[in-house]
Amino acid sequence: MQESWIRNERLSSQVAFLVEIDKLKSVLRKTFIMDRSRLENTAEHSWHVSLLAVVLLEHANDPSLDLNRVICMLLLHDIVEIDAGDTFAYDTEGYLDKEERENAAARRLFGMLPDDQQGEWMELWREFEDGVTHESKYAAALDRLQPVIHNYYTGGVSWRNNGIVRSQVLKRLAPVKEVSETLWQFTNDILQRSIDQGILLDDPIAKEG
Amino acid sequence: MQESWIRNERLSSQVAFLVEIDKLKSVLRKTFIMDRSRLENTAEHSWHVSLLAVVLLEHANDPSLDLNRVICMLLLHDIVEIDAGDTFAYDTEGYLDKEERENAAARRLFGMLPDDQQGEWMELWREFEDGVTHESKYAAALDRLQPVIHNYYTGGVSWRNNGIVRSQVLKRLAPVKEVSETLWQFTNDILQRSIDQGILLDDPIAKEG
Repeated sequence: MQESWIRNERLSSQVAFLVEIDKLKSVLRKTFIMDRSRLENTAEHSWHVSLLAVVLLEHANDPSLDLNRVICMLLLHDIVEIDAGDTFAYDTEGYLDKEERENAAARRLFGMLPDDQQGEWMELWREFEDGVTHESKYAAALDRLQPVIHNYYTGGVSWRNNGIVRSQVLKRLAPVKEVSETLWQFTNDILQRSIDQGILLDDPIAKEG
Repeated sequence: MQESWIRNERLSSQVAFLVEIDKLKSVLRKTFIMDRSRLENTAEHSWHVSLLAVVLLEHANDPSLDLNRVICMLLLHDIVEIDAGDTFAYDTEGYLDKEERENAAARRLFGMLPDDQQGEWMELWREFEDGVTHESKYAAALDRLQPVIHNYYTGGVSWRNNGIVRSQVLKRLAPVKEVSETLWQFTNDILQRSIDQGILLDDPIAKEG
């Protein structure tokens, strides 16, 4: 979409991009919203997890991290799903070509922006994906914690639908351990409660032990 | 909801709040998402407008404004709609008690947070509502511009459904004029194009003039 009627050339590209990313509102995740009435979409998830980052910052082991960078990462990190789709966290097959699909998506979508912005957004997105900086680790931890909270408060519907067991969730939540002792304790507690309530399966091996 | 099983008292309040605000995903606005398949909800709107703030910052007359503060305001400013509902921008009757309804909502919802955070969030929310600072003016301008872009790209469906005319939109969009010459030019151009395409009504008086 080229919006040639927009007099400012940079604004023309930016508006085209901002219209295009509206499609994220139609990308459905595997988690349900809290009232269980429907699946959550990725745009509203991005809003929710950004607010988790703001509210829970004090629990980060390094609370001096750059919150603005964290939020920008969280707002944009899933935009690639417009082309690449949402890859379920426990879909090992889907993860085989996830990187390739998402790289192409990032090039097309962020490529709609003026060059300098495209560069900045690619950098932010790669920083999130690489997970090396404090900011990207904290962002990733919350991105993984949010669906666990959703699962707990929706009777584990997404876990049960997909036959997920505790060790899979713990492995997925590993970034939380690195960024916050308090949130890691919370993660372990919420999973134990989920098992006690029968909404998450324990591992077969752990049961035998 | 008191989550007494969460060992950290502050985290317990914060999680209860973060679960409660999930309800914003079920508050429907009058605008449609771009593919016209359904109404937009306020959570995904908050995500979208936050990204407008990031992408369009260079067009602000004062691009040195505190972007982090702007984004935090945009992420939280509509949370009050969980209790107060979405008041349509052109609903003069609804606006009569909007302030009262939203004040009560802010007290209840932000009141779920620990005291210091409650204070910060109330302050941010009031800053947005008061619209005096550069940050709140820029945030408000985008919050008002976003549905105009939506209306334009969805054939003016919300304008037409509600019999809205140009002068109403221009009045509503006045904050844009104050924060950005480029975005104000864009606003006027997009409204003129909407009228030319027959998706927005011009004012009867303007027609006679």
